[in-house]
Amino acid sequence: MFEDAEVGHELSKDEYRTAQETLRVDLLNAQFDLRSADFSVLVIVSGDDRFGRSEVVDLLHEWMDARYLVTNVFSAPTDEERERPRLWRYWRGLPPRGRIGIHLGGPGFGAIVDRLNGKADDAELARRADHVRRFERTLTSDGVLVLKFWLHVPRGELKKRLKRAKKDPTLAWAVDKEDRRILKKYGKLMEVADRFLRATDTPHAPWRIIETTYSRYRNVLIAVAILGALQHRLANGESSPPPGSGSAAVPAAPDGRGPLDSVDLSAQLPYDEYKDVLREQQARFGELARRAWDEGISPVLAFEGWDAAGKGGAIRRLTRAVPAKLYRVTPIAAPTEEERSYPWLWRFWRHLPRAGRMAIFDRSWYGRVLVERVEGFADEAAWRRAYEEINDFEDQLVENGAPVIKFWLHLDPDEQLRRFRDRERTPYKKYKITDEDYRNRGRWDDYVAAVNEMVARTSTATSPWHLVAANDKRWARVQVLRTVGNALERALDR
Amino acid sequence: MFEDAEVGHELSKDEYRTAQETLRVDLLNAQFDLRSADFSVLVIVSGDDRFGRSEVVDLLHEWMDARYLVTNVFSAPTDEERERPRLWRYWRGLPPRGRIGIHLGGPGFGAIVDRLNGKADDAELARRADHVRRFERTLTSDGVLVLKFWLHVPRGELKKRLKRAKKDPTLAWAVDKEDRRILKKYGKLMEVADRFLRATDTPHAPWRIIETTYSRYRNVLIAVAILGALQHRLANGESSPPPGSGSAAVPAAPDGRGPLDSVDLSAQLPYDEYKDVLREQQARFGELARRAWDEGISPVLAFEGWDAAGKGGAIRRLTRAVPAKLYRVTPIAAPTEEERSYPWLWRFWRHLPRAGRMAIFDRSWYGRVLVERVEGFADEAAWRRAYEEINDFEDQLVENGAPVIKFWLHLDPDEQLRRFRDRERTPYKKYKITDEDYRNRGRWDDYVAAVNEMVARTSTATSPWHLVAANDKRWARVQVLRTVGNALERALDR
Repeated sequence: MFEDAEVGHELSKDEYRTAQETLRVDLLNAQFDLRSADFSVLVIVSGDDRFGRSEVVDLLHEWMDARYLVTNVFSAPTDEERERPRLWRYWRGLPPRGRIGIHLGGPGFGAIVDRLNGKADDAELARRADHVRRFERTLTSDGVLVLKFWLHVPRGELKKRLKRAKKDPTLAWAVDKEDRRILKKYGKLMEVADRFLRATDTPHAPWRIIETTYSRYRNVLIAVAILGALQHRLANGESSPPPGSGSAAVPAAPDGRGPLDSVDLSAQLPYDEYKDVLREQQARFGELARRAWDEGISPVLAFEGWDAAGKGGAIRRLTRAVPAKLYRVTPIAAPTEEERSYPWLWRFWRHLPRAGRMAIFDRSWYGRVLVERVEGFADEAAWRRAYEEINDFEDQLVENGAPVIKFWLHLDPDEQLRRFRDRERTPYKKYKITDEDYRNRGRWDDYVAAVNEMVARTSTATSPWHLVAANDKRWARVQVLRTVGNALERALDR
Repeated sequence: MFEDAEVGHELSKDEYRTAQETLRVDLLNAQFDLRSADFSVLVIVSGDDRFGRSEVVDLLHEWMDARYLVTNVFSAPTDEERERPRLWRYWRGLPPRGRIGIHLGGPGFGAIVDRLNGKADDAELARRADHVRRFERTLTSDGVLVLKFWLHVPRGELKKRLKRAKKDPTLAWAVDKEDRRILKKYGKLMEVADRFLRATDTPHAPWRIIETTYSRYRNVLIAVAILGALQHRLANGESSPPPGSGSAAVPAAPDGRGPLDSVDLSAQLPYDEYKDVLREQQARFGELARRAWDEGISPVLAFEGWDAAGKGGAIRRLTRAVPAKLYRVTPIAAPTEEERSYPWLWRFWRHLPRAGRMAIFDRSWYGRVLVERVEGFADEAAWRRAYEEINDFEDQLVENGAPVIKFWLHLDPDEQLRRFRDRERTPYKKYKITDEDYRNRGRWDDYVAAVNEMVARTSTATSPWHLVAANDKRWARVQVLRTVGNALERALDR
């Protein structure tokens, strides 16, 4: 991929001065227009030219209005970052709508370095490229303009620079032993980088390889690329999603049945038995949760289910069995204004727990393919895409050692109605039933279709759905406890 | 302070069961009502009874709806936390409106332990108590209901527990060598705790000392206290701010003059001279900023000034002189919906940089006593209080090694009008002038009064205001560079 970046393009000082003058005004104007636009821009500055990368980021700050740039320099991760999946800190550093975010480094470079140092094998490199590709696709699908630059310095030029730096001590801080290492492994680096770049070079987020031998040429090239893409987007609005993105509908089964039909809703547990099993399962879960804490394993639990199916009650039976410091429950409601200014998964990434802590989501990212689908809050292309986005999100959690345990609490419409009526009679105000609950009931069949497709498309070997019969609350609670226990046991055995 | 907490209060099992039943329903109901209320609750669970603290937090999770609890366990700080002022992580862990936040540990306990271990002297303990007191006052002034519990275990009881734990290995995880250390230094601990508690015991956030010998009594006592305070607040709305909070107006000088009048607006710098001085000062600043980065010093710069006074231009002259990774510019506009659900300083705390990074605020927390005062967005009690809140905020930054450098760019109304007209003629769209800018001009005298009082009340020895004559932009830019350079030099010499 580097052939065109070893040509030795050059610009004269005069050409540079002229180009710069109009470029800077145009960039400032485009940046101003962006502030009221409905998308954000992510500029990823990566590459083998470490010195050039910093120079380019400084240049962008100089030529644009630094007040509206959100720059993140990704070097060694902090301990809070190390305890989450690798991409967490890139999600954390995303710009909100109307802003330009600059990522110095970007998620690819670490993977390449790890491969070079033997810390990752080819399969691992491919896996990480895959996550990066999907990450960028999630962003672009959500409207983010992603611009990726790989700054490439030809071998001879790098050699010259290191020699110059040796003589000029004021350059020494910029060129260090990391660069010497790059020179030594230059061939291998190019080979690995080539593989990674090809794997993450996509129509929606293509790489731009920039030769950095001549800084004037480099600067203009990058500024023109950013300006062009930004102006084009401002003028034309969002490009239509690439064909083939999202996934085709799963054809409905000829008999109209789906995963939900396999749930035996007659399952129940008599009170006497329940008391004992509950205590036993809570003790088991408590013990396992404490071991998970000791080993830094952070289970992620997602609870979905019909209104009044007993999600809250099931969650309380879990949390009562463990010390409060071991978990946090995050109830998911409509996104806030701030959350809406980021790609949709951002608000779930931000709640991922530190090592050892259990994250319990009361409703979850599956709202995208449930309520948002049924109520039309997300268009079809968006929620169809979400299956893949969700699978990738959960894959990253699992790879990071966090078991993902997800429940659909199932009941039938009659039982639901009985509970609504019950709740209306109880003095606990917190169980108020609203008109919305009744309205959702009217959409029962739409939700059944959505749940069946969700289960079919997101039940994976590593994070399967657990459909729990919840007509009997006692049965459901014990089932949940037992399932979480089993999952923790497996995670601890690994 | 511990006399009443060594009495040995007790509740029978039956009494406990009866009390518990109604308490739990009432707590859930109050928590439900809180969800739509306009305040948050912060429950601080601290004390010498380490085991009891955890038990109480678990209890609150069991008796209330864990989905609407935001619990933070403060043990050893993470590296991201260590790089900020001590209270940063407590700000970070605040609950939003409508929620109950639980802080296990709380900012006091660390100070007490440090004093015990000789890591802090008496003056340091007093200083930290002072920050905590002001922190809690800022919260309560902003409507947060702060409830503080100190769990106290009498010496004899602690001894018994440690003996029991030795025999019962299942208890060993809960009682560890930290407790043994507490027992050994019991007398000294009580003495230091007593001092800290008295210093942070205020009418708006009083301590409740709870004896933990008998857990049933302890549980009911705490639950009743939380329920009572919550119900009272829900029923009565916000209590009026304590008398004497906020600060009296600075009487206007008899001649109507203030700090702004001392600025010599005729100051200017001819272009030829400017070019050289600018280059020289930028080089100096760049060098100093790099040294600050090396030493982990994080300067905090705040830019205030009249519309069109040249804040943006002055900031750009700074940022161009340093690599992008050394700073972040945060433009401050109206708070977002999410930010409005926290106490007002929260949105500034959240932007404090990691060690070595410079934070540049384009407008700042001083908006509270400028635009919010003049436009009436904050009531008088609120903006009067803000002087003290701001001073304490900046004190914490300075104590953490971050020089606070703040500018008011001053010009006269004629020069401002000239610049508005100029901007209206320029092709750079980003300099659009809106009706609001003209409206603000109409309030010139109100702003002068606000600025004069702001300077008088928040110019402190450690973070003085710099009033910069900005009728001549060149003069202003060089002044800013020079001032920041001087401040960095002083910080590096320390």
